[in-house]
Amino acid sequence: MRATLIYGAGDIRVEDVPDPKPQAPTDAVVRVVSACVCGSDLWPYASRPATEEGGRIGHEFLGVVEETGPEVRGVRTGELVVAPFVYADNTCVFCAEGLHTSCLNGGGWGNDGVDAGQGEAVRVPYADGTLVRLPVGEDSALLPSLLTLSDVFPTGHHCAVTAGVSPRTAVTVIGDGAVGLCAVLAARRLGAERIVLMGRHARRTALGRDFGATDVVPERGEEGVARVRELTGGFGTHAVLECVGTLPALETAFGVVRDGGAVSRVGLPQYAQGPVGRDVFSRNITLTGGVAPARAYIEELMPDILDGTVEPGRVFDRTVGLEETPEAYRAMAAREALKVLVRP
Amino acid sequence: MRATLIYGAGDIRVEDVPDPKPQAPTDAVVRVVSACVCGSDLWPYASRPATEEGGRIGHEFLGVVEETGPEVRGVRTGELVVAPFVYADNTCVFCAEGLHTSCLNGGGWGNDGVDAGQGEAVRVPYADGTLVRLPVGEDSALLPSLLTLSDVFPTGHHCAVTAGVSPRTAVTVIGDGAVGLCAVLAARRLGAERIVLMGRHARRTALGRDFGATDVVPERGEEGVARVRELTGGFGTHAVLECVGTLPALETAFGVVRDGGAVSRVGLPQYAQGPVGRDVFSRNITLTGGVAPARAYIEELMPDILDGTVEPGRVFDRTVGLEETPEAYRAMAAREALKVLVRP
Repeated sequence: MRATLIYGAGDIRVEDVPDPKPQAPTDAVVRVVSACVCGSDLWPYASRPATEEGGRIGHEFLGVVEETGPEVRGVRTGELVVAPFVYADNTCVFCAEGLHTSCLNGGGWGNDGVDAGQGEAVRVPYADGTLVRLPVGEDSALLPSLLTLSDVFPTGHHCAVTAGVSPRTAVTVIGDGAVGLCAVLAARRLGAERIVLMGRHARRTALGRDFGATDVVPERGEEGVARVRELTGGFGTHAVLECVGTLPALETAFGVVRDGGAVSRVGLPQYAQGPVGRDVFSRNITLTGGVAPARAYIEELMPDILDGTVEPGRVFDRTVGLEETPEAYRAMAAREALKVLVRP
Repeated sequence: MRATLIYGAGDIRVEDVPDPKPQAPTDAVVRVVSACVCGSDLWPYASRPATEEGGRIGHEFLGVVEETGPEVRGVRTGELVVAPFVYADNTCVFCAEGLHTSCLNGGGWGNDGVDAGQGEAVRVPYADGTLVRLPVGEDSALLPSLLTLSDVFPTGHHCAVTAGVSPRTAVTVIGDGAVGLCAVLAARRLGAERIVLMGRHARRTALGRDFGATDVVPERGEEGVARVRELTGGFGTHAVLECVGTLPALETAFGVVRDGGAVSRVGLPQYAQGPVGRDVFSRNITLTGGVAPARAYIEELMPDILDGTVEPGRVFDRTVGLEETPEAYRAMAAREALKVLVRP
């Protein structure tokens, strides 16, 4: 089959790889119907050292079950399923707590001989724990939104949940990428009425307004902090959803959070140390969030997609075939595209 | 009157200072019956640069109201009252949220012309907001425990509350100082059944066991982390109460916290940057806590002291007169005393 590999910064190739087969009795093979490129894929695309051997890439996909190992009971051949961005057994102590990202048997797509999502098919470990059935056909117009259940929508939701967003919470969302926009959508869905979106790309912030943002702040750094404080009585907001992952974004988050509030982050940290000294301490700021256990949220979020209440799939503004995946990376890195859907 | 001043590291003096008088109509003057030295007082005692002019010091006290400004309504002359370790109006938006440490009109004892606690009397700003009446006489045997309502007991409680301690939570407490021991007491009071206390001073950890610790780990660093993990099925505990404030203590906290858990800190951070990068992110660890809004908790905690359910006053293992305050600092810094009560 064909699949996407990364050989180093800026070097994405689509190549022939072995066809996947169940290896463990709990494996399934899924033919990929829709995959996509994640903002976090852009970090290795920007900086991964060049290597002789490529690495498989992509961690968001939905597709049709083609084959199952003898112990798979929860999904059957021919069913349309979505996979969260890590696989998990859904039975261990961490999965039982809803923390599938810490699953004792889980792991990441594209590592340790497991296929990645940007390809024609994927061998799925712990298929019963990992995959969730989708009650639509593979021609459904809802597929883009259902594909966001792999990562961006639950990630935005995790950010809002861990920050304690409720109808009483004013919220600042930092970042107008697909995750930031999904965080806006998630905050609105949880009832927040005041949502300040910090972002400077007009097409993205326009979608943010559609998703529920009440204010848009294009300024960055100290100027951005001052603007958000001005909009919020001088105090900032109780919940800050940091959807970028850089140190300046974290600093901005601490600048706009209200005393006693929470900064939740879901962007992969591009720093090892953060400014969590006396200022954060004396203001009783909580730093929370982390890599989102998407699997824990899929059943909760799916009904709102099925009945049209939310349309997170609007974050996709371009669709390509599998052979064009390198162009998808280029367009996203150049910010020509917000998020690109890949149809193998 | 006489009061304690700090002139630099190791240089504590008791001197004559002006008698306090109400300055604002909302002020009261309190004659101090009991004060004490805080672990956080030991930081300037260890490192404050020498100065010509001394600074007033001490932020924990209870005493008798001697005089009130014309707008004071909540307390009367002759009443025994306790003061939290910052003063606050108890009416602003932050106080209304229970975050008296961020009071718009509040401040710290010993700053900006306000008296500090280690003296014969204190002018108390916003007396109605700051002071809480104690329903006992000044000869009550409960006074040491009631004095802990100023700081250490609510601080331990804040640590446990923000870490989410409940009957279902296993807890690690880092530090066997007075705050750490009060954190043990608070965690037990909130129902925690498994409380691991990390500390190496046998007399202190013995009191920790009396307060509710089920396990004591004297090892530090990696060895201490390994021991706590061994005690907790390899995973660590959901709640970690960091009651020291140093970077090694924070690192230990991240080492012993279970994935998806919370590190709450109430020890004044002795660092500007902390290790909150990918490990903390990928494990979904929350960093919370901060300077405790003691005022918000006094009414809740006092009944358990009055009826003898808890005895946080057991952290005091020495009592001195005001003139001996320098010796109190020396003894605490040398770890000869856990916490010293001062009787002016």
